[in-house]
This record gives sequence, C-alpha cells and structure tokens, in this order.
Amino acid sequence: MMKGNLLISSMIERAERFFPKKEVISRTSTGIQRFTYAEIGERTRKLASSLKEFGIEKGDKIATLAWNHHRHLELYFAIPSIGSVLHTINIRLSPEHIIYIINHAEDELIFVDEDVFPLIEAVHDKLRTVKAYIVMTDHELPSTNVPNVYSYEEWVQTGDKAFEFPKDIDETEEAGLCFTSATTGYPKGVIYTHRSTVLHSMGLAFTDTVGASESDTVMPVVPMFHVNAWGMPYVATWLGADQVMPGPRFTPKILAELIQDEKVTMTAGVPTIWLGLLKELEENSYRTDSLRAVVCGGSAAPLSMIKTFEQKYNVPFLHAYGMTETSPLATVSRLKSYQEDLPEEDRFNIRAKQGMLVPGLEMKVAGGQGEVRWDEEEMGELLLKGPWIADDYFKDDRGNETFIDGWLHTGDVCTVDEEGVIKIVDRTKDLIKSGGEWISSVDLENAIMSHEKVFEASVVAVPDAEWQERPVACVVLKDKAGNITKEELIEFLKPQFAKWWLPDDVIFMEEIPKTSVGKFLKRALRDKVKEHYESAY
Amino acid sequence: MMKGNLLISSMIERAERFFPKKEVISRTSTGIQRFTYAEIGERTRKLASSLKEFGIEKGDKIATLAWNHHRHLELYFAIPSIGSVLHTINIRLSPEHIIYIINHAEDELIFVDEDVFPLIEAVHDKLRTVKAYIVMTDHELPSTNVPNVYSYEEWVQTGDKAFEFPKDIDETEEAGLCFTSATTGYPKGVIYTHRSTVLHSMGLAFTDTVGASESDTVMPVVPMFHVNAWGMPYVATWLGADQVMPGPRFTPKILAELIQDEKVTMTAGVPTIWLGLLKELEENSYRTDSLRAVVCGGSAAPLSMIKTFEQKYNVPFLHAYGMTETSPLATVSRLKSYQEDLPEEDRFNIRAKQGMLVPGLEMKVAGGQGEVRWDEEEMGELLLKGPWIADDYFKDDRGNETFIDGWLHTGDVCTVDEEGVIKIVDRTKDLIKSGGEWISSVDLENAIMSHEKVFEASVVAVPDAEWQERPVACVVLKDKAGNITKEELIEFLKPQFAKWWLPDDVIFMEEIPKTSVGKFLKRALRDKVKEHYESAY
Repeated sequence: MMKGNLLISSMIERAERFFPKKEVISRTSTGIQRFTYAEIGERTRKLASSLKEFGIEKGDKIATLAWNHHRHLELYFAIPSIGSVLHTINIRLSPEHIIYIINHAEDELIFVDEDVFPLIEAVHDKLRTVKAYIVMTDHELPSTNVPNVYSYEEWVQTGDKAFEFPKDIDETEEAGLCFTSATTGYPKGVIYTHRSTVLHSMGLAFTDTVGASESDTVMPVVPMFHVNAWGMPYVATWLGADQVMPGPRFTPKILAELIQDEKVTMTAGVPTIWLGLLKELEENSYRTDSLRAVVCGGSAAPLSMIKTFEQKYNVPFLHAYGMTETSPLATVSRLKSYQEDLPEEDRFNIRAKQGMLVPGLEMKVAGGQGEVRWDEEEMGELLLKGPWIADDYFKDDRGNETFIDGWLHTGDVCTVDEEGVIKIVDRTKDLIKSGGEWISSVDLENAIMSHEKVFEASVVAVPDAEWQERPVACVVLKDKAGNITKEELIEFLKPQFAKWWLPDDVIFMEEIPKTSVGKFLKRALRDKVKEHYESAY
Repeated sequence: MMKGNLLISSMIERAERFFPKKEVISRTSTGIQRFTYAEIGERTRKLASSLKEFGIEKGDKIATLAWNHHRHLELYFAIPSIGSVLHTINIRLSPEHIIYIINHAEDELIFVDEDVFPLIEAVHDKLRTVKAYIVMTDHELPSTNVPNVYSYEEWVQTGDKAFEFPKDIDETEEAGLCFTSATTGYPKGVIYTHRSTVLHSMGLAFTDTVGASESDTVMPVVPMFHVNAWGMPYVATWLGADQVMPGPRFTPKILAELIQDEKVTMTAGVPTIWLGLLKELEENSYRTDSLRAVVCGGSAAPLSMIKTFEQKYNVPFLHAYGMTETSPLATVSRLKSYQEDLPEEDRFNIRAKQGMLVPGLEMKVAGGQGEVRWDEEEMGELLLKGPWIADDYFKDDRGNETFIDGWLHTGDVCTVDEEGVIKIVDRTKDLIKSGGEWISSVDLENAIMSHEKVFEASVVAVPDAEWQERPVACVVLKDKAGNITKEELIEFLKPQFAKWWLPDDVIFMEEIPKTSVGKFLKRALRDKVKEHYESAY
C-alpha cells in the first residue's frame, strides 16, 4: 500500500477543486461577506506564498489572535500547508499568560484582528521572538508605535495565486498548537499533527458521530482559538459544506439571525452559548427549522436545556465530549438503533450522557481496583488513547502527571453503562468526598438547572469537620422568573437524590465565574464561596 | 500526538464491547444461523488462539476458499489480529491459477468450505507450503485422502476465549492479500495493511460516501473472496451494524428473501447480481422497502437498471468505483446538495457516473498532453494515489507497468465534469479507435441495455481495413420480451450518438462471457466475435 500522506493541504485542495461554488459566509466588522471555496482557495495560496516570501520555514510557529471569520479560516490552511505551525491564542487570556505562551512557543509572526490589536500594543515589548504583526481588517491599518506591522489584505494581494502547496511534509509533522488553562501555573500547550488533524476530521464525518456532510451549512460558534473550533472548520472545508463564521463579539441575537438567514444546519459550542441563545429564542421569534444538529460540549449540557430546545423549538442536540488534549472529539451521544423505541424520558437520559467512543480511539475507566464495572454505578477516571490524542505537553514537565503508560489521564470521572456509554460525573478534583463516599457535583448541578426558575448552577465542596467535605450549591436565577428559597430548592431535589447528597447550603449569586471558554471556573467559585462564609461572620 | 496504531483487531473489539447484542445472520448449508457480536467476538478470540497454538506467526499467509458466512467473517478478524495475513482466494479460478497463487503466496494453512473441498482434493498434492486444511462445516468432516485435515468448529471449541489480541503490530504491517486476474498470465496479488484497511473502512463510514452506520443491516453480496467484499464486513462490524451473510450458491430468490425477511438496509454487489435480482422482483413479489442503499460497482451499472430499481421498486442505488488495487472504494456517485433540484433525468445522468473521489485520496486524469480539461469531453486515464491504494503487486515484476511515479495507473479511461465527477468511458485496452477518434464501448453498452427487450450487451472492436477498428454489439435479449432485429436496434441508437459511433453489426447471443466476479470478459468476447465471423464464411 502507498504511504498516503494525510496532509491538511489536501483538505483545502479538495474544497477548491470539487466544491468551487460552495460558500464561506463571514461576519466581519463591516458586515456579512461571502466567498466561494474557489476564492478562499486562491486567497489561501496567495497568503501561503507571502508567508514563504517573508521567510517562514518548516516548523516555525505562527500565532493568531482572532475571532471566527474567513481570514482565520485561510490561516487554518495556509500556515500548516507550508509546514509551519498554526498557534491559535485565546484572546481572553490575561496579558501575562499571553506573553508567556508567545515566548514559550517562540512565535515568529502574529496575525491579529484589528479590535484585538490593543492587546498587542500592551504586550509587544515583552515578546522575544515575534518578527512581525499582520493585522486583519477591512479598513486602514491602525496607527501605532508597534514596529513591523503589516496588512493581511496586502499579503493576500501580493501573493502568488498559482502557489503549489509543498507535499514533502510527513503526516506526523507538527501542524497546530493550542494552549489549555492549567489549574495552577501557566497554560499548557498541545501540538497537533497533520495526521491527527486529518484523522480527527474523519472522526467528525462518520454518519454515526457528528455526521458532517457537504449538504450542511456549518456555523462554528466555539472560537477558532479554542481547540481548532473543535475541528469544524477543517471538516466543513474538506467536505465542501457551506460555512458561516459569526465574527467578532457576537450576541445571542446575532447567532439567532445567522441561523435563520443563512439556514444553518449544524453548529457547535459550549452550553453557556446555548443557554444564551435559548433566552433569545424565548424573547423573540426566529426560524430555526434548518438546524439538524447543535453540537454541544466543553462541559455537560443540562438535560433541562436539551429538552427545552428539542421539545419547544424542535432543535436536535448532539452531546459530545472532549478536551484540548483530544483534538477534541472523543465521544458523541447518539442513540443506538434499538434504543429509538425507548420511552422519551429514557432516550433523553441516554442522550444527555457524554456517549460512546468515536471509532478509532480506545478507552479505559480506571477505578480504585483496576478497570471499573460497566454497570452505570462504579466511578473511575476516563483514560484515552488514539491517533488524535496528545501524548505530551509542549516543552512542559507537567506532561508526566497526565500522560502515563501510553494513556491520557483525562482527570474526568465517569460511569459506563453495559454497552460502553459514558457519563461524566465530575472532574477528579471537583468530586465531593463526603464521609468516605463520592458525590457528583455535575449530577447535582444538572438537577438544580432543571428547575424552571434557575438560569445556571454550580456545586462545590466546602470543608466539613465531621464529613470531610459537603456540597454547597451556587445558583443564578432567571431574570424575570421570580424568586425561590433555599428550602424550596432542596425540597425540589429531595426525590432525586439520597439524603446525604443534598447540598448543605444554597448561595444565590449574580453570576457563576467562568473560564475564558465559558466553562464554570470551580477554583474561583470555591474562593467566592469561602469569601461568602468569611464575610458572613 | 500519540502514534495511535490503526489495527484491525480494534474493529472487532469495538463490536464486542459496544454492540454485544447486535447480530450476524449467516446462511449456511443447514439454514439460517444467528450470532451476536459477543458470540462472534468470543469465537474469533478462540480461533485466534488456536492459530497461535498451531504455530502461526507474524507475516504467515493463511488462505480462505469460502463463501460469505459467519466463519469467513471470524477469519477476517482472527487472522490479521494476530499479525498473520488473510489471503482470500477466488473459488471460481481455474485449478492451475489456484495452485499458482497458493504456492506464490506460500500459504501455511487453508480454511475451506465443505462444498469447495473437492477443489482442494484435486490440487493438494501440488501445494508446496500448506501445512493443514481446516474445513468449515456444520457436519462431520468429509472422508478424504488429503492429509492434515482439521475441523474449524473444533479449532473454535478448543480455543481460549480470554485470548488477548496482540498490540505489538505496526499499522503498516501486512494484513490481507487478494489476487486479481490479469489480461494475460497468472493473477497478480495486492497486499493490504492494517492501516489501509482501517482508513478504507473510515472511507466507507462517511455520511457523504457509502454512509455505513450502526443502524444498518448490511448484506455483502459481493464475495468475501473478492477485494474483502469491498470492505463491507470490516466497516459493518466496526460500527456494530447487523450483517446478513448470504452463504453458498445463493440465487436471486434467496437474496430477495433475505432482503425481505432480515430487513436489509444496505447491500453491495456487481451489476450482474442486480440484473438477476431485478428479474426475480419482476417475476415474484417481495418487500424491499427496508433498502436504503444498493452499492453497485465492479463494472458500470446500466442507467436503465438504476432507473427501474428506483422508479419501480423505490430501491436507491449508489454507484461506486474501485478495483482490487484500491481496496476498492475510490469514488462514489452522490448528488451534491445543490444538484437535488435538477430535473430527474439530469440527476439520473449524474448518479450513473462513477462519481467523486472519496476524501483521503488524490486523483489525476492523464490525457495525451498532461492532465485533461474537466469539461466532460476530454478523455484520459484515471490515476490514483492515497493511503488505501496499492503501490506494487506482491512479488511480481508486472507492477512496473501499473505503479509509476507514485501513481496507480488504473487502466480506466474517463472524462471529468467541471466539479470533479468522473465518468469511466472504457478500459484503455477496450476503447475503440475508429479513424483516429475514440469510441467508448461503455457508452454504447449502456444505451443498448436501456432498450426494453435487451437483458445485457457488450460492445467490442473488430479490425477494419479502412477505419482501423469498428464497434460491434453483442446482445442478449430478455427471456420473454420478444425479438428485435439488428436494424431496429441501430435505429434505436441513432438519436443518441454521432453516426460514426453506431455499431457496424449486432450479434445476438445466449450469454456474454463473464469473469469469475461477474464482469464482462471482453477478451473472451472478442474471441467469440472472431469465431462468429470466421464460421460465417
């Protein structure tokens, strides 16, 4: 058999040649712009040739600080296609962390959105390796003291449209780099390869996983600076699907309008995005019947939200699970064919789990005594292995704690049903250990969020002299839904849990602290809860 | 990223663990037998342990001479899973060719169906490397003079059900071997690897290609001795789809009954199989509404047949193209989303083409002056490249003519439309060269087969003093449809072709000679035509 190099350049080439008329619809600061794949392909080639012209070589790291738009998509292909490495930076990180990761990655260039440029102005004199900044804008370049600032559109304009992507790249060479927040210390980097990116895209294209298709109009809401927007831009381009890029500083209203106007069929994002969209749908009226899959991951989607979307708006949810270290798609929750006849409640309960391993990966759930029983009860840490699972962090000793004996230790605790469907019950470090038993904060959160007056909720452990730890619920109520007391909420939970699982206290808040990608930030929440109790005395 | 070995054993492990209740329905000489994947997995492990017990080692070639049934499926997994090589032998080859390929492959063992065993009795004393014969039967072993004959069921019975598949196999190691007939001389062997087999299975599981799914009931009619039954048993097992194995010496009636009784959703085979099934459906009544895809390849499916199946029986056809050297899936013909609104006739015309390249492969169409224009007119030879395309023949010098500069030269001539859809117009050696221009025998054949009285037709070149070559049509009429004259048939073709394309003659026959896998055997047909003219003088 031929070696058959799995290269990222082959994905954009496929879109150019086989789907020249299909479209990328990009929301920028000047409005909606439309490009065909023939145009995107040509712009990508020109950009790639300008990168080479500038002197970029194989293995060089090239950073982006940008929202989801057509230019970021072009960079997704131009940078790895010439053998350099696409380093997407989370624009919501602190300046200190941004400085650290740019220096740590030794980025040569930074492509930056005009409205993110002030961030560069604030930190540029601390960046040790960056040779130039290329600003992505529809307008004039900003006037600035930062040296070596170029115009993206000029790089495109002066590039060679006949540029051929080099094929002397091995599929195991580096193609991408993304940093993930650590509980303590600086973010940790994960390197993606051409092989891992192409195989992960295959994982998204199976009928039984996400089932991406040429017939889709895909809108990645998950940021392109966050785990390659879950690989959606890659697979959508490869298959020739239309793409909608929601651009900078979008609101739920903007998302709802894009779904309606562009007839989006598939979108992807974290639960907080969909909670926001749900609120918008409840307040204003939109057509959402084009949607056939809302891929939801990053943290567990509350069952109540899934139900409201499906029952009230007929919008089908697809619950998925993964992390920066897994490219990210690891599991998808779909019913098996013979489960389609189960009662509605049972079907929702299965679909609200994280689901089944994507073909191509291996899993193991490690409890205290080896692998756990697949009985939906025993809990253990989920370990993963496979061709799109990281095997180390980028130049970082902390990999030793996570990558052990050839397995990624996800730090997520789950149960498994008898046919392999996993349900994440907690992060290993968020599990609440009460009287020698484990309480799942995620189960409690989902139950609380199913209360009609609750907008969001997070449960953390507080130290307890007698029981070691006890759960406390932090709750944000819906704007106009009226009040509810601590006692009413506990009463609401009683039928669903053993008595010792019930939270000892409920703290009502304006907001739950979240990470830059919209997940509950339990560390900050625990601090907040601590303050709450300290200030009470 | 982890190396992430793509191994065949992971496919059966997935079926065992995630789909233990799904079924393999196997038609054997004693009737229909049903097995769950839990059972198939256990039997496969036992068999693999018995192979090891016998002394089979990595790289050893193990042959099968068998129909499509559950035992053959177990061998599909047991043999490569221990690092040995599954060599599927076409039971319809001549004894001379069977002796050649077994000796050429240096097969250590032969697994053989009871009704194929006489073939072994006839040749066994010429086999130089075979250490034992394992007979697959529900009954007693045949009494025979052949030495070292064992019972398959005994090997299963005495095996270790806790046997663990070894993981110290590299994905680029050999996993399978299949010989393909050559125009002249002995068959040529193609080696498949673990990597090529797993990636090819991914190619079958994309929504936009064959779209195999857990929800399918897959019946591979294409023989398991022919290019791994087009990979259907691998992907179906991997995804946990139910499988129906049609067993030995099936008839169109048996196929129709299996489709009806087992609610088959997806099946695969060559056009002659579906012509036979169509005849059965026209004569007797069956339910076929479970079918959602009849994958048809091996040779071009006549448009008229596709139409009848879809319009009269609502059975959707999926035209695909490939060959032994391509694992085989290379292209699939599906409409692009924006073609769904075209008039019915246009849609049929697109779908009757060979279609679009499967993601993961590369193609080039080489004409006289470099690559041909994608204009649906210019003809050239199709060249392919990719991770499931062969790069040589097994221990055979003839590879030099086929694998050149990193490309497989398919020997098939095609045109390409402006968005990459290919249409095979002929084999390079079957093209008819008339007056310096090319005539496509396949186009003429399809047009003739669309005549309501024609059962099948094949067009070959005859030498011509003036024009170099001229086309002659060989036609088999339907049983009870009545006669038609040569003149009537030419008259029927006139509106569809330029005058110089029309066949000079029509020869009516009882049967068109076919290869052992059901393709028209043009070499034999040319001989027959030659005889016809010689005997006429």
